Amino acid sequence: MKKNQIPHQIILPASELPKQWYNVRADMPNLPAPYLSPRTHKEVTAEELGAIFPKSLIEQELTTERYIDIPKEVMEKYELFRSTPMHRAYELEKALGTPARIYYKYEGTNPSGSHKLNSAVPQAYFNKIEGIKRLTTETGAGQWGTALSMATKMFDMECTVYMVKVSYQQKPYRRSIMQMYGAGVIPSPSDQTQVGRGILAKMPDTNGSLGDAIAEAVEDAASHSDTNYALGSVLNHVILHQSVIGLEAKKQMEMVDEYPDIVIGCNGGGSNFSGIAFPFLKDTFDGKEHAKFIAVEAEACPKLTKGVFTYDYGDSAGMAPITMMYSLGHSFHPSGIHAGGLRYHGDSPLLSQLYHDGFIEAAAVGQKEVFEAALLFAQTEAIVPAPESSHAICQAIKEANKCKESGEEKVILFNLSGNGYFDMTAYDMYLSGKIGDGIPGLEEEIARAQGEIKDLGL
Amino acid sequence: MKKNQIPHQIILPASELPKQWYNVRADMPNLPAPYLSPRTHKEVTAEELGAIFPKSLIEQELTTERYIDIPKEVMEKYELFRSTPMHRAYELEKALGTPARIYYKYEGTNPSGSHKLNSAVPQAYFNKIEGIKRLTTETGAGQWGTALSMATKMFDMECTVYMVKVSYQQKPYRRSIMQMYGAGVIPSPSDQTQVGRGILAKMPDTNGSLGDAIAEAVEDAASHSDTNYALGSVLNHVILHQSVIGLEAKKQMEMVDEYPDIVIGCNGGGSNFSGIAFPFLKDTFDGKEHAKFIAVEAEACPKLTKGVFTYDYGDSAGMAPITMMYSLGHSFHPSGIHAGGLRYHGDSPLLSQLYHDGFIEAAAVGQKEVFEAALLFAQTEAIVPAPESSHAICQAIKEANKCKESGEEKVILFNLSGNGYFDMTAYDMYLSGKIGDGIPGLEEEIARAQGEIKDLGL
Repeated sequence: MKKNQIPHQIILPASELPKQWYNVRADMPNLPAPYLSPRTHKEVTAEELGAIFPKSLIEQELTTERYIDIPKEVMEKYELFRSTPMHRAYELEKALGTPARIYYKYEGTNPSGSHKLNSAVPQAYFNKIEGIKRLTTETGAGQWGTALSMATKMFDMECTVYMVKVSYQQKPYRRSIMQMYGAGVIPSPSDQTQVGRGILAKMPDTNGSLGDAIAEAVEDAASHSDTNYALGSVLNHVILHQSVIGLEAKKQMEMVDEYPDIVIGCNGGGSNFSGIAFPFLKDTFDGKEHAKFIAVEAEACPKLTKGVFTYDYGDSAGMAPITMMYSLGHSFHPSGIHAGGLRYHGDSPLLSQLYHDGFIEAAAVGQKEVFEAALLFAQTEAIVPAPESSHAICQAIKEANKCKESGEEKVILFNLSGNGYFDMTAYDMYLSGKIGDGIPGLEEEIARAQGEIKDLGL
Repeated sequence: MKKNQIPHQIILPASELPKQWYNVRADMPNLPAPYLSPRTHKEVTAEELGAIFPKSLIEQELTTERYIDIPKEVMEKYELFRSTPMHRAYELEKALGTPARIYYKYEGTNPSGSHKLNSAVPQAYFNKIEGIKRLTTETGAGQWGTALSMATKMFDMECTVYMVKVSYQQKPYRRSIMQMYGAGVIPSPSDQTQVGRGILAKMPDTNGSLGDAIAEAVEDAASHSDTNYALGSVLNHVILHQSVIGLEAKKQMEMVDEYPDIVIGCNGGGSNFSGIAFPFLKDTFDGKEHAKFIAVEAEACPKLTKGVFTYDYGDSAGMAPITMMYSLGHSFHPSGIHAGGLRYHGDSPLLSQLYHDGFIEAAAVGQKEVFEAALLFAQTEAIVPAPESSHAICQAIKEANKCKESGEEKVILFNLSGNGYFDMTAYDMYLSGKIGDGIPGLEEEIARAQGEIKDLGL
């Protein structure tokens, strides 16, 4: 196929939908260090995890099986919204005048608006079959909360969502859509949990953080026997579920006889980046291909580029397992940026280990350049991207511009993890010149939060 | 293929995208009566239409060619977002307990959120190649305005959108998204036009109407030589462009060896209904198949079920061509229902003629039952539907429930013409019990507006 005859949209036939998830733990040279119990500081036991997770997900968390079958009941729900289209970004290429060929996998066509539904559906299912009636969770941008609300409704379960306060305020319609699916939505920190009350006592005006919201959701789940907790990113089983993105993307690239030189995803807790990247990374492990992988984070929350590889708490209150990961410190409070999904202080242990081992690169981009990229993308490709996903767009444009300078015809693939229909407030602010550069006090806040990690003596 | 093994999503391969539009004028037994000039009350001339439309669209308006080639430049843009998926609504069927098999064509995956982009793209293109620099239009729900903003941006043109005031107020984010695409957005009636100033002088507190907004946009276009007007529904060339929906849907039904017994679409100006219905209606004309076609309107704006088949103005100010159609009267002001796209007083002349000749049935549904249907659909099929499209869902559910009573395994196909991501205010009101039944003063308003048609002596 001639490279200029590749269709705008590359659609995977239904018969080609992946039937198994890909588990990077089977192939990575160094497995991440084990989770530690926040109480004992010793390796966490399956029993301890069982307080908030179902057995089947704990198994998925720890297994090194290469492929895990997707249950029939999950496939039936996946078929509601998968496969997702891959686009050749002809219009963006033209606007940039780049010789690079840019592709994006668009996860925003699904009803929750982002890739998060890929993991919400199996998490709801595996909890349901083990008798759990209600799931609690946190949400930042609102995308995970929307996805879990939809997924719990699919399996006739209840759902309680602790929503980071700044997102709750910036995105009122996100709250509404979760309520449409029957979820209870609580701005975090809240007075509904012991943890929340503690945070509010110390910082009554806080914007909230994913760390805080996780702590509240975990406390709620741990204190009710019919209730479990569900996390939308970070953990191995979430990354496992998200592999459907990359597995489809590989087949779609094959359909047009392409292979990416560069694979890009934005990076909050790591799930959408890992989802698209790891199935391609397998080819690196196998010595077949060697793409460059770039995890793109927000300058305001630069865990990979400015954090440390360390054991740290996954939540601000120290209730979740202690994890070996890149972290800015579990007490880090990022400024109120519009990419709520990228405000997490830590990162996926899998992604962290692979970054530490040199398989993955990282980049941090600023909020203003991100919105510039988002607007250019919207005006050329006619899709309104989520601010989170726009970090990936921003980096893709940078790479394409490098190709313009060097004349290289690189193949760039990024994950457009969600749409921005619920982010018009942020776009409004950008269009009216209210989003600037620079993050005052960032270095000091990182130094403070990292000091607290050291004090743990882990 | 066994009927219970049909996939959830039926995806048309890219190679099967329609390359031509289908023109129902080639096959309908009685062509609609000609448009009349609002000035002379005589048959409108191509020259008069040329004041606000390009030659190529006027040709499409009047031709009886059966198939019209889709230009390469339009196909390139279509490929950004077409084909659209057809879904088998297994989850909805289960919730209803119906033996009917329900399918829906989902036009909300495209970046503007509705089917409107199917006509916005060719309209922008045909204007562009005739040297037009700017398009004006009206928008009700905001979907057409969004689509035209995107399409004009694609072809590097300017765009001015007169937005019905009630929609402007209920949907602030719709305004933002049009502005992202560089459009100027003006709440209508406005003080920017002579017509608008006149309406405001008489009714300073009006909610506005599509008729008013059309009048303003037409005046703006007619008074600038580099500017044309673009209409999102009603006219023949719009209906022509929308035939891609039904042409794709026919192929998708063939893929799973099905044919609809009932085809349903909501009906504002007729474009999405006609888009899905007319390619199937061709089989009726050919004597091959005989589906039942149901155009579903809002009880608050019942032009087919309570209007008259008559010559009437297309806009409230009498500037647009006079059209033979079902109408409530060009001065009809509907109450502020949340389906802004269904508030037009008249209807497509093609659809009107076919309804008059008995090929199409009509139904009117109430706002409360529509939101009930929308919520059930969202909770089962996991897509948040636009309030307009939910009228089609509501009727599809009624038909499926009839099948439950009779035991008939009918095949029901409806057009889910758009998503409801920008309609959360309406959903919020519904969830908090603020949307009720009944439309006070409707009968009186219809009587008043129809009296004004009679006074025209057309």
